[in-house]
Amino acid sequence: MPASYAYLGPEGTFTEVALRTLPEAATRELIPYVSVQSALDAVRVGEAEAAFVPIENSVEGGITTTLDELVAGAPLMIYREVLLSITFALLVRPGTKLSDIKTVSAHPAAQPQVRNWLKKHLPDAHWESAASNADAARLVQEGQYDAAFAGEFAAARYGLEALETGIHDAENAQTRFVLVGRPARPAAPTGADKTSVVLWQRDDHPGGLRDLLGEFATRGINLMLLQSRPTGAGIGNYCFCIDAEGHISDRRVAEALMGLKRICLQVRYLGSYPRADMRPGDVRSPRPGTSDEEFVSAADWVARCQDGRF
Amino acid sequence: MPASYAYLGPEGTFTEVALRTLPEAATRELIPYVSVQSALDAVRVGEAEAAFVPIENSVEGGITTTLDELVAGAPLMIYREVLLSITFALLVRPGTKLSDIKTVSAHPAAQPQVRNWLKKHLPDAHWESAASNADAARLVQEGQYDAAFAGEFAAARYGLEALETGIHDAENAQTRFVLVGRPARPAAPTGADKTSVVLWQRDDHPGGLRDLLGEFATRGINLMLLQSRPTGAGIGNYCFCIDAEGHISDRRVAEALMGLKRICLQVRYLGSYPRADMRPGDVRSPRPGTSDEEFVSAADWVARCQDGRF
Amino acid sequence: MPASYAYLGPEGTFTEVALRTLPEAATRELIPYVSVQSALDAVRVGEAEAAFVPIENSVEGGITTTLDELVAGAPLMIYREVLLSITFALLVRPGTKLSDIKTVSAHPAAQPQVRNWLKKHLPDAHWESAASNADAARLVQEGQYDAAFAGEFAAARYGLEALETGIHDAENAQTRFVLVGRPARPAAPTGADKTSVVLWQRDDHPGGLRDLLGEFATRGINLMLLQSRPTGAGIGNYCFCIDAEGHISDRRVAEALMGLKRICLQVRYLGSYPRADMRPGDVRSPRPGTSDEEFVSAADWVARCQDGRF
Amino acid sequence: MPASYAYLGPEGTFTEVALRTLPEAATRELIPYVSVQSALDAVRVGEAEAAFVPIENSVEGGITTTLDELVAGAPLMIYREVLLSITFALLVRPGTKLSDIKTVSAHPAAQPQVRNWLKKHLPDAHWESAASNADAARLVQEGQYDAAFAGEFAAARYGLEALETGIHDAENAQTRFVLVGRPARPAAPTGADKTSVVLWQRDDHPGGLRDLLGEFATRGINLMLLQSRPTGAGIGNYCFCIDAEGHISDRRVAEALMGLKRICLQVRYLGSYPRADMRPGDVRSPRPGTSDEEFVSAADWVARCQDGRF
Repeated sequence: MPASYAYLGPEGTFTEVALRTLPEAATRELIPYVSVQSALDAVRVGEAEAAFVPIENSVEGGITTTLDELVAGAPLMIYREVLLSITFALLVRPGTKLSDIKTVSAHPAAQPQVRNWLKKHLPDAHWESAASNADAARLVQEGQYDAAFAGEFAAARYGLEALETGIHDAENAQTRFVLVGRPARPAAPTGADKTSVVLWQRDDHPGGLRDLLGEFATRGINLMLLQSRPTGAGIGNYCFCIDAEGHISDRRVAEALMGLKRICLQVRYLGSYPRADMRPGDVRSPRPGTSDEEFVSAADWVARCQDGRF
Repeated sequence: MPASYAYLGPEGTFTEVALRTLPEAATRELIPYVSVQSALDAVRVGEAEAAFVPIENSVEGGITTTLDELVAGAPLMIYREVLLSITFALLVRPGTKLSDIKTVSAHPAAQPQVRNWLKKHLPDAHWESAASNADAARLVQEGQYDAAFAGEFAAARYGLEALETGIHDAENAQTRFVLVGRPARPAAPTGADKTSVVLWQRDDHPGGLRDLLGEFATRGINLMLLQSRPTGAGIGNYCFCIDAEGHISDRRVAEALMGLKRICLQVRYLGSYPRADMRPGDVRSPRPGTSDEEFVSAADWVARCQDGRF
Repeated sequence: MPASYAYLGPEGTFTEVALRTLPEAATRELIPYVSVQSALDAVRVGEAEAAFVPIENSVEGGITTTLDELVAGAPLMIYREVLLSITFALLVRPGTKLSDIKTVSAHPAAQPQVRNWLKKHLPDAHWESAASNADAARLVQEGQYDAAFAGEFAAARYGLEALETGIHDAENAQTRFVLVGRPARPAAPTGADKTSVVLWQRDDHPGGLRDLLGEFATRGINLMLLQSRPTGAGIGNYCFCIDAEGHISDRRVAEALMGLKRICLQVRYLGSYPRADMRPGDVRSPRPGTSDEEFVSAADWVARCQDGRF
Repeated sequence: MPASYAYLGPEGTFTEVALRTLPEAATRELIPYVSVQSALDAVRVGEAEAAFVPIENSVEGGITTTLDELVAGAPLMIYREVLLSITFALLVRPGTKLSDIKTVSAHPAAQPQVRNWLKKHLPDAHWESAASNADAARLVQEGQYDAAFAGEFAAARYGLEALETGIHDAENAQTRFVLVGRPARPAAPTGADKTSVVLWQRDDHPGGLRDLLGEFATRGINLMLLQSRPTGAGIGNYCFCIDAEGHISDRRVAEALMGLKRICLQVRYLGSYPRADMRPGDVRSPRPGTSDEEFVSAADWVARCQDGRF
């Protein structure tokens, strides 16, 4: 097994910065790949131990290329997630002044985050899309454009300097990344975990999806993501990528998954892993009747009833 | 342990007839008691092995004295049920003609079943209530009344003859009886079973009872009886006596009971026993996703997910 | 229309006392009837303007004779309810001492309320059931028994005196009575009302009753009584007598009733009337989204959408 | 009001072909726009009467740029939808043979549909993405690439010929387009309609989304699309774009919308319009209890109860 992590490249992007926040990344070789698909395929074929890719952001929602890769093909599992706040720096060649800037470049995904800033400070600058923010920085280094929007961390790599930092039109702009590997035992529960699954409905009838969600709701389990994805069987046919609170070793989650397994056409388990948005102490108590203790005690009681001892 | 069954007496009533349909009754001493309470207490204190009492009929619904005895006090369990169709004979002293009858007697519960027949055939007869139909027959024997409504089987015992048989205003009049014992392992599942429980709600809020019933509904379990009974905590405070399809060893029933145990203030298990109204072959297939096989297979799948092998 | 109220007699019972708490009773002739059925029939045939009968108590729950009369036959409606706390006095002929009492009498319904008191103070007294508590008092007056359990108010009427008052084994023992008339416009809403209906399920399937209750639950309507009663179609066939919070002129109640009307085989409306257990100020605010204002505003919004103006 | 329709250009794409299937398109000027946003803005500012844009396809699911435009900004409404099966032709300059082709081009969205065909017939051809399939055809005309994947209809416009037609990796590949205008009265119901809305949850709790979907489910309304979109309030905050069966003038749909309006933070109505996938005769009967007749009859019944006439 290679001690390496594939990630969505190129180097010098937010993905790499997010990946480096994981302690285990320090002991792996980090290899950029040109697409989510190629990074995940590297894991599937054993070229990499795991892959690190974006899965959700506050502007686009679920990132469909990643979700579609997890939904189809050989099964993979999510082991970790990282949340990264996204703010941009305006990178220029040393000595460039704001008034010198005629062209700016970045990945198109950056545009919603910098549009208002541009309107205010560089209303006449011409926008050129780049394949990545890192690529935009490279093209500024090469003199093709005057300025790039990228992470501040990219300045050093490309010999640029940041004329402005902390640029973000939307407060709370964040991207969520996941570390994906081949199926294995999930990470141990921490008390603040989430579980990801993909659900395919057995048939389509009024209330079908409501009943699926009911398997979570009746056990007091909150949902954090519900993203429909086409099944490939024609327009209007969807499966559902769901992130739910809790760990598969929590009884309420295990029972909900069993219920889904019974009523769905298919369920794909994508893993249980620590939540990046809260620590164990921050998780509210589960709804009465849904704690592990209550599950164990109820199972004991039924066993005693089955035996006639109560 | 005395090899005896207590039953609601006196001798010569429908209860005794129903009891004698049980094969095991042939090998026990059958002892009449004056009330449901005294028959059940005989079981509780060890005077009798089991008690046989009416629990539901098609005119009155759940028989509250029996239900209240099962709801409160030392726990008891139901092991068998018997359904008996109730039709009456008009019993008279030999030689009595219809036109001779001026007074008729029976237990008050018989009245709704014979009212129309009386109106048509004996419009002028005077009704006198008796403590039991058997007692009415005895009083006819002693000459106090001219005729008694009772089971045809009572004629011989009291030296009477049946002027008319098969009297029943309501079609489908039936009484359901149960054999009740101290808690022990329930009867083995037959494929056509029912399970009885008493539920106390944790708190009273819109949807509280709906959620309790949802524990059955989401697992495809039909209900056959839902009878509210006062808890004793004041008007408007009820617990619920429920008969549900299936046996506690059916996975869907066991899981429903666990769910109820977790969300109810209290659950009293009253037993799982063969249904008297159908045989195993007559039971419809459970709803998709609720068979034992599907429960086992879903539990296996979750166990494999917990292990990362799927 | 006779300005008279029928009530369940005889005179001198708790029913009469409860009836006299209604201001309108002061201006009517109050006529005792021998049974609930005869009192309600008096209303149906126009002999009485309304009938006053017990419908629920804290020991027996729903009073089945009254419920069955409301469920079947020509439709009637409930216009008022009265709650009466039930405590007993021990009535004796003047001069009788506790140690003189060998026999006591009352209606059988009184027994659960005085059993413990008897065990403690008159362990050797012999119990004789009477047709009513008032009748027991009359029989004490006539010398047939030594003491009667009845309402203290009955003492004067029968020339007896109360050796003891406030006898009640169960705290919070109450009986609820209703004033029943022919169908007419319900009483105006007060802000603290209840609505009574009878529901017959269209068919019997897992979740059927849960779905009926869901019509109340999804609109934030709490239930105060759910009493199953046999439909007469054979054992296991039940309709449901339900008391729900709110008035039929409340939008959420009206919409719940419409929903029930659509999915039930049959719905019988039994009226909307002021709650006896709380005043308007005591009623908690309805669940968000279920107030009249929110219903009106949502209906307005849909009307505007239908018109393309929003 | 200009008698013109804006559409997502350029000319010669599937969007234009789909638009021309609408009879009303024959009487309008059809104006291509460079983006969904600019086409919809043309409607908002009154430059165009309506805009025609793709909203869902069988590969990508809901088209997020279109959904996000409908979710935010000045309200718009959908009046028509068109379903178009997507198959590609391989367009070349006249005389080009398969073996001559070294480079192929198309819009990236075409790639999943032609990948397998390319692997089999042109395994060595180099892929170049174009801004649209029509643009790819233009670049073939200009000699920049050897072949373009585009609709067969584009051949004539660019002086090309189709070497192969009917290319489609996935069966049932379809795109759904909608005609969007400023708010006005919805199209009259046809019996086979759908209704589009956007829902924002009031708060996030276990069962929240399940309850929203319950407003449709309890009224027997099937869903055809459920697409979550970020609200802009940070990662994990979503609203839901929903297509439901039926027309806002159907009582069950109107009542479901009222229910949603009451329990949601916000509801945006996006219109009711004829379904492109079935004709009125193909629509299955609504679930018992949810037809217009049953709604009207239930409302009548409640009105009669409110009046005391029943």
